[in-house]
Amino acid sequence: MTADAETRDPEEAPAETAFRDEEGRLSHAFVGMVAAAIAAGDEARLKELVGDLHESDVGDLIEALEHDDRPKLIGLLGKAFDFTALTEVDETVRVQLLEELPPETVAEGVRLIDSDDAVYILEDLDEVDRTRILDQMPGADRVALTRSLDFPEETAGRRMQTEFVAAPPFWTVGHVIDYLADTPGLPDTFYEIFVVDPAYKLLGAAPLDKLLRARRTSLLSDILDEDPRTVRATADQEEAARMFERYNLVSAAVLDDADRLVGVLMVDDILDVIEEEADEDLRALGGVTGDEEISDTVLYTARSRIPWLVVNLCTAFLSASVIGLFEATIEHMVALAVLMPIVASMGGNAGTQAMTVAVRALATREIGGHNARRLVRREALVGLANGSVLAVLLGLAAGGWFLNPQLGVIIATAMVVNMLCAGLFGILIPLALDRLKADPAVASGVFLTTVTDTVGFFSFLGLATWWFGLG
Amino acid sequence: MTADAETRDPEEAPAETAFRDEEGRLSHAFVGMVAAAIAAGDEARLKELVGDLHESDVGDLIEALEHDDRPKLIGLLGKAFDFTALTEVDETVRVQLLEELPPETVAEGVRLIDSDDAVYILEDLDEVDRTRILDQMPGADRVALTRSLDFPEETAGRRMQTEFVAAPPFWTVGHVIDYLADTPGLPDTFYEIFVVDPAYKLLGAAPLDKLLRARRTSLLSDILDEDPRTVRATADQEEAARMFERYNLVSAAVLDDADRLVGVLMVDDILDVIEEEADEDLRALGGVTGDEEISDTVLYTARSRIPWLVVNLCTAFLSASVIGLFEATIEHMVALAVLMPIVASMGGNAGTQAMTVAVRALATREIGGHNARRLVRREALVGLANGSVLAVLLGLAAGGWFLNPQLGVIIATAMVVNMLCAGLFGILIPLALDRLKADPAVASGVFLTTVTDTVGFFSFLGLATWWFGLG
Repeated sequence: MTADAETRDPEEAPAETAFRDEEGRLSHAFVGMVAAAIAAGDEARLKELVGDLHESDVGDLIEALEHDDRPKLIGLLGKAFDFTALTEVDETVRVQLLEELPPETVAEGVRLIDSDDAVYILEDLDEVDRTRILDQMPGADRVALTRSLDFPEETAGRRMQTEFVAAPPFWTVGHVIDYLADTPGLPDTFYEIFVVDPAYKLLGAAPLDKLLRARRTSLLSDILDEDPRTVRATADQEEAARMFERYNLVSAAVLDDADRLVGVLMVDDILDVIEEEADEDLRALGGVTGDEEISDTVLYTARSRIPWLVVNLCTAFLSASVIGLFEATIEHMVALAVLMPIVASMGGNAGTQAMTVAVRALATREIGGHNARRLVRREALVGLANGSVLAVLLGLAAGGWFLNPQLGVIIATAMVVNMLCAGLFGILIPLALDRLKADPAVASGVFLTTVTDTVGFFSFLGLATWWFGLG
Repeated sequence: MTADAETRDPEEAPAETAFRDEEGRLSHAFVGMVAAAIAAGDEARLKELVGDLHESDVGDLIEALEHDDRPKLIGLLGKAFDFTALTEVDETVRVQLLEELPPETVAEGVRLIDSDDAVYILEDLDEVDRTRILDQMPGADRVALTRSLDFPEETAGRRMQTEFVAAPPFWTVGHVIDYLADTPGLPDTFYEIFVVDPAYKLLGAAPLDKLLRARRTSLLSDILDEDPRTVRATADQEEAARMFERYNLVSAAVLDDADRLVGVLMVDDILDVIEEEADEDLRALGGVTGDEEISDTVLYTARSRIPWLVVNLCTAFLSASVIGLFEATIEHMVALAVLMPIVASMGGNAGTQAMTVAVRALATREIGGHNARRLVRREALVGLANGSVLAVLLGLAAGGWFLNPQLGVIIATAMVVNMLCAGLFGILIPLALDRLKADPAVASGVFLTTVTDTVGFFSFLGLATWWFGLG
């Protein structure tokens, strides 16, 4: 069966119903069939439907099932269920499901999969549940998992796989190849052989394609890359991801503080990290915390979103109080109240553009000492340029609407001022937060709209008050 | 030299100055030294400084240099310059640089690198420049590159590498290994051997680790994976990326419409695609077009950002006109003008939260027929819940500020209405755009703020007019 990214022949799909629709989404009909088989307790039918699916597809299927059907599916599949599938479901779903399954089932399932996947599954459980599961495992597995879990979250040590292939430098290529052919229990997938000394200090790495291209009689020490890119176990996963991206790696040795090889980071985990980090930035800019998932409940979602809204409520009061300064002016000229939100919101939009570019460039390390100043100047000039163009449009429209050319001039001036501020603060705020070691994606937005709202209202209403001699 | 993601020993850095600072950014001092060597025309010094750097670091260096120094660097380095570095710089910088270099230099440089990198470098050039470079290349290279360039942008065919290792099914593992050791000119990196029939139809794939674990006497046909995940050359690169992510691939065969093997997609290119697509979503939500880069000029940046601002200016007028309906009310009670932006902006913030989650879930195919309805209900309830909590706060604060409890009740009611709309439209707008095959990330924001502004102003001012009998 060839799983094309573009088209999928319905004949080739598992069982009689296509598993995914043309858009790559899980098919409704297929989920229905699985649910029916679960309801009927039909083990054979379930294995026929789900048995051959990739673990990642099984993960999507679990998410699509009703809450109560999920543990039943795993129970009915028994040994045919690959726990790796649980790495592909939302955290909320995973944690609930693990709490409902018997600890010995989880312990047995987790023991059979790669250590990085096992850690990923266990790390979100609370201490008690996790210990209950680990206690059911054989000593060696328990020790290996516990060691990975002891590294802080979001470090390379947490993400690494502790299964790898290591060999001493004096082995020949032929010997390594024979060893690989003869040794059971090697990792499922590996892309390089690590060369180590007796204390497991890393001497180098030999990618498989180099190994295959070498003579059987060559020594590992002759063909190894002596300077492979490596990662400290305590390094942040994001730093590791940047390294993979920058140097196009597929795997990298993970070293402890004594330079001993303790594991390997694989590119598929890095792919997840990159996706996660991009997601976090995007959500942060949208005022959503990183761990919100679409499977969360109403209550959980509402709670996780409200702190951001409360902060915004406070800043909204701040800008309202600026308007409050000019109550007398507005009373004399209500047109000002009609027009003022335009100046404020345009500043917000332009500032957000500058901020978005800055936040992303900071995340990908594109902004440094050498170009920060140039970027600030650029944003100021862009704000000024677009502000001037829009000011003309806005001035003409507003002046025409209220048949008051002076009002047009005033709103146009306020617009230029606010757009300039928007460009400047759109880049300065993220830069400042980054320098203060705060995440620019999270907090830039609040500060920025506070600036653009207050400057927008103040410049427009202030200019009008002064010009028309009101207030 | 071990390039740690966490720490980098200054002693181990190239030459005497650290190339990157602790944050992973290019060091100012290093760039200065390179610029000085360029100014002095000191070839030897340049090769000493830059010669051993990874091509990706050279790319960062090029971006950090002054405009005029860039072609000079490449000229002085001569054959020591690896054109792969150009895949790591911004499009703007790359195109300018390629236009300034002599076509024969580019042709020679591009000929020596992997075809996917060559295509990446050439694809952004205009027809004339590109032809001028291709004309300088030997026939076989030109034909291969032209074929890749004939595939539409952002397809797998454009991103694929045309160098791969293929073998017939009747070869033994030993034969393949000997072939790999004896054949010069194999691709730089490969992770699997493709098994093909005489017409280059794909029969299967043998990952290198499987090959190494097999007996030398086994036939390829016995060990191959008969159902490898493959991609059509015309498939969208984003679909290919989803497949890599879902099935944890490091490479995948690319097939033409007749199922013939034409190339291979590598995970490092997919990493770039994932980063690009996440970037595009993020920028689109911030009102920035996908191709804006931090190296763009003021004029280019201003021009590319203004269409979005003009659209927003129009919608801002729309909401202003809603306020205009209530001029008489505001004249009687200026407090309304002071408070109205709060209702509108809180709706905007809450709606953006819902929209951000929806846009991202649509992009990663997490929303499908099976959960869309549940998500709409969830967002409506979250809007209602958070709206109610914030309404109480806002009502008390506003009522207290203007010593008018009735005003507090009115603004609280308007707040609940607007927050409910914000939640509903925050998810319905992206869903509708997605169904209409429009990109939800690009257009959702405008529609959403139009809804939350107009509903916010109308509900608050309308309720006040009705309650106080003004207008």
